[in-house]
Amino acid sequence: MIGVDWGTSSLRAYRLAADGTVCERREAERGVLTVPPGGFPAVLREAVGDWIAAGEDRVLLCGMVGSRQGWVEAPYLACPAGVAEIAGATIRVPFEGPARVRLVPGLATRDAAGVPEVMRGEETKVVGLLAAIGAAPEATLCLPGTHCKWVRIRAGRVAGFATYMTGEAFAALSAHTILARSLDAEAPPHPGAFDRGAARARQKGGLLHHLFGVRALALTGELPPDQAGSYLSGLLIGHEVAAALEAGVAPPVHLAGAESLVALYRRALGAFGIPCRIHDADAAARGLALIGGRLDETDW
Amino acid sequence: MIGVDWGTSSLRAYRLAADGTVCERREAERGVLTVPPGGFPAVLREAVGDWIAAGEDRVLLCGMVGSRQGWVEAPYLACPAGVAEIAGATIRVPFEGPARVRLVPGLATRDAAGVPEVMRGEETKVVGLLAAIGAAPEATLCLPGTHCKWVRIRAGRVAGFATYMTGEAFAALSAHTILARSLDAEAPPHPGAFDRGAARARQKGGLLHHLFGVRALALTGELPPDQAGSYLSGLLIGHEVAAALEAGVAPPVHLAGAESLVALYRRALGAFGIPCRIHDADAAARGLALIGGRLDETDW
Repeated sequence: MIGVDWGTSSLRAYRLAADGTVCERREAERGVLTVPPGGFPAVLREAVGDWIAAGEDRVLLCGMVGSRQGWVEAPYLACPAGVAEIAGATIRVPFEGPARVRLVPGLATRDAAGVPEVMRGEETKVVGLLAAIGAAPEATLCLPGTHCKWVRIRAGRVAGFATYMTGEAFAALSAHTILARSLDAEAPPHPGAFDRGAARARQKGGLLHHLFGVRALALTGELPPDQAGSYLSGLLIGHEVAAALEAGVAPPVHLAGAESLVALYRRALGAFGIPCRIHDADAAARGLALIGGRLDETDW
Repeated sequence: MIGVDWGTSSLRAYRLAADGTVCERREAERGVLTVPPGGFPAVLREAVGDWIAAGEDRVLLCGMVGSRQGWVEAPYLACPAGVAEIAGATIRVPFEGPARVRLVPGLATRDAAGVPEVMRGEETKVVGLLAAIGAAPEATLCLPGTHCKWVRIRAGRVAGFATYMTGEAFAALSAHTILARSLDAEAPPHPGAFDRGAARARQKGGLLHHLFGVRALALTGELPPDQAGSYLSGLLIGHEVAAALEAGVAPPVHLAGAESLVALYRRALGAFGIPCRIHDADAAARGLALIGGRLDETDW
């Protein structure tokens, strides 16, 4: 089968063997935001048309392609949900030719106060990670990214999750506030400054106050511009980790995502004394294979 | 004398009687950021040259005009500091003609963890407010703005302060993240949505998580676009107020600043059961008069 992790800014396609092995992979800068209305079938053909011509007749899509801005909206599935429920809630997408195309739904939950939470694309990564984690009765996954997801696993299913807008807050604050004047956005990562920011996050004062500290430290010469970005990153990730730990985690925290970002989260979690296990970034491909494997000929 | 509150984006000039009464006032969009290098004397002449020609020979400036990006840098004065220390730390600025021009210094302090804090311009408003507050042994001032300042007063002097980047965080997050898609930036204020955001700030989860809730509530149709801006504002101000209260305040909180913003802070403080006293926005003019009044002929 073909699996496609189709997000906001990019498209990752996998040609998958029956056992889930990735036989071939491709990446294109054809994220959902780049696709004009009605243009999804053409972009899919562009990306994997040759694989379909070669005989692959099942295509499973996950990610923002199933959002309101995507190809077809796949309604969110309520938690708790595991691979069986997710596979059962995939929806068929009209596509001309021999291949059948289905969409993986996102997941929704509510926190104790009744405030909603949604994910779309991460549920597939979670399914891929569940196999790697094994049969622990409880587990915590952390998927860093623009919107970082902390996922509570209970008995092999997603019990609930919480999203932190940390990556996007970093981008907006570092480029569109006075902090932009204090930091060199081109500087390489500075681990010491990251740790200093993460340590600051554990002190009193709140994030909005700590943010101004970046400016004040720069003004007094105590934070050089080439360290300020890493300090800000440590501050934000530190605040995120502190809030996530307050909400409760079941160590070790399972981390999966872009290598550099995962390294920062491991660093921040380590500062709180929380052990981590790092998983490879191919969780989405494995998840697509596992969800697809649950669908038999009549389901497709 | 002439007092000028010369900030980043605007210049407010006051012609002041000996008793501090504002005889005449002007405002110009000639903030520090609009002034080319070496252009400060010309802009000052443009703004108040006729008052100088009419015989005013003392000009006292406060605000970002005394920063590194301003006319001349006036070093920060360390707390604790009251009107006497601030007047004593004003510095002379070279200016051709009959008028003598002096700059009010900013204030600096450090929190318990040693992280620096700075203000520039607000110290003058604080001096103006001290007269209105009277002789309470302890008081808390809150000056909402792009960077909101919470000031601890002890025995008539600034004992310390903390800055919250709330206003600027609101601007960056509402315009430069995915939240921009969920909110109508032109919508009028919605008090109910503000209160809802402020109430959310008192729940667990942390600000970075609560921010994503704005998006999730919008996606599920539980937060209309014309309420989302007020909700976000309530969320941010609520987090600020919660952190400030945790750091400790001496009620009532004295509020001074732009009317609409002060109303929001009063609302948020009220939700925490903290009484407020609202002061008029002319504190800077009064402060300039009081600081200027401490300087005698030889000081100038």
